[in-house]
Amino acid sequence: MVGLKVFGQPASTEVSRVLTCLFEKNLEFQLVRIDTFKKEHKIPEFLQLQDPSGQVTFREGDLTLINSRKIIRHLCDKYADQGNKKLYGNGSLEKASIEQWLQAEAQNFGPPSAELVFHLAFAKPLGKEPNMSIIEENEKRLSDILDVYDQRLGKNAFLAGDEFTLADLSHLPNTHYLVTRCERGKKLFTERKNVARWVNDITNRESWKKVTEMQNEHPGPLEK
Amino acid sequence: MVGLKVFGQPASTEVSRVLTCLFEKNLEFQLVRIDTFKKEHKIPEFLQLQDPSGQVTFREGDLTLINSRKIIRHLCDKYADQGNKKLYGNGSLEKASIEQWLQAEAQNFGPPSAELVFHLAFAKPLGKEPNMSIIEENEKRLSDILDVYDQRLGKNAFLAGDEFTLADLSHLPNTHYLVTRCERGKKLFTERKNVARWVNDITNRESWKKVTEMQNEHPGPLEK
Repeated sequence: MVGLKVFGQPASTEVSRVLTCLFEKNLEFQLVRIDTFKKEHKIPEFLQLQDPSGQVTFREGDLTLINSRKIIRHLCDKYADQGNKKLYGNGSLEKASIEQWLQAEAQNFGPPSAELVFHLAFAKPLGKEPNMSIIEENEKRLSDILDVYDQRLGKNAFLAGDEFTLADLSHLPNTHYLVTRCERGKKLFTERKNVARWVNDITNRESWKKVTEMQNEHPGPLEK
Repeated sequence: MVGLKVFGQPASTEVSRVLTCLFEKNLEFQLVRIDTFKKEHKIPEFLQLQDPSGQVTFREGDLTLINSRKIIRHLCDKYADQGNKKLYGNGSLEKASIEQWLQAEAQNFGPPSAELVFHLAFAKPLGKEPNMSIIEENEKRLSDILDVYDQRLGKNAFLAGDEFTLADLSHLPNTHYLVTRCERGKKLFTERKNVARWVNDITNRESWKKVTEMQNEHPGPLEK
């Protein structure tokens, strides 16, 4: 078997999405972290560079992928019989439902939540000024999306039905930062009953707990 | 300029020796850490593998070195005019004195202190039984060596004279683990007045503090 390699930092939402999938699939892999230490810097640069937007690169033999959502689909297609076999559904109907929510995450949930993660949780520790109008605009967008999620999650345990799938997994990285790093972000999830229950369920997956353990060893820009 | 690359984990004494020298010399470099995650392991393997005997690899263009003491000499020879310029002495007389203590560290201080680090501080967290006769034998050897050091350090601030040099730097990784991870190891240093003062001086170097900060983010096998 060709070795699986992931290049990047666990603090990055892109990287943590891929790591969670690898743990769910119980696959063997190598994580390669490269940190640059510049001259004259009092603090190692990597302590400042733990940015949620950090890139991920996945390599498997000749194959190279750089989009976390493509990587997790690839892992589930190629290793369908390993680890969690329900992650990408069985059959075209289940897969279609998972795809619908995967795309909702990438197109609707992802952009405003990433903006909020940056401006609410990371801007200040990185020495940047949070932009209040960006925060308000994206809070409104995310609220509207979470209203739809709350309805959906009133009918089923998870987004694509009664099983935890890539659809849920893909939401974990940004959700986790919003819920754990800022009160204003947390409120968006906890004030919706079904969303709150779902967040509790998905953040308690063993796979995700391993990833947050890795993030905590190397915590990135935390406000003191 | 060709990029400097270090491969390994900061918890390793070999790696931390090289990192301290790079910080003293204020050189730009990349640290590459590769962790393997095996199937069926509840805990990421790297949390168990933070072993003080871990290897270091240094690359600079076509040059590859794998011995930490060779690497630090190379850095000081090649980058004589950068950062701390006194680290490897000026002139052959100073260099000879530094060499003498560098060799004392590698041949006399290093082996018993590495045995003690393993058996006193790392064996139990790694699930191995400390060997009491190895501990007693090496404690005796290290005591005899530290008696010589104490005499020497009664005459000069540092081993090779009045400046902090590679001779002192090279002692940091094992000394640090003995002093911070086990009472029995700490006693060997604190019960000798001049050695105790020296340990305090060298462990407070900015370069070393950066390295221990990196070790603490990724702390290796700690007894709970």
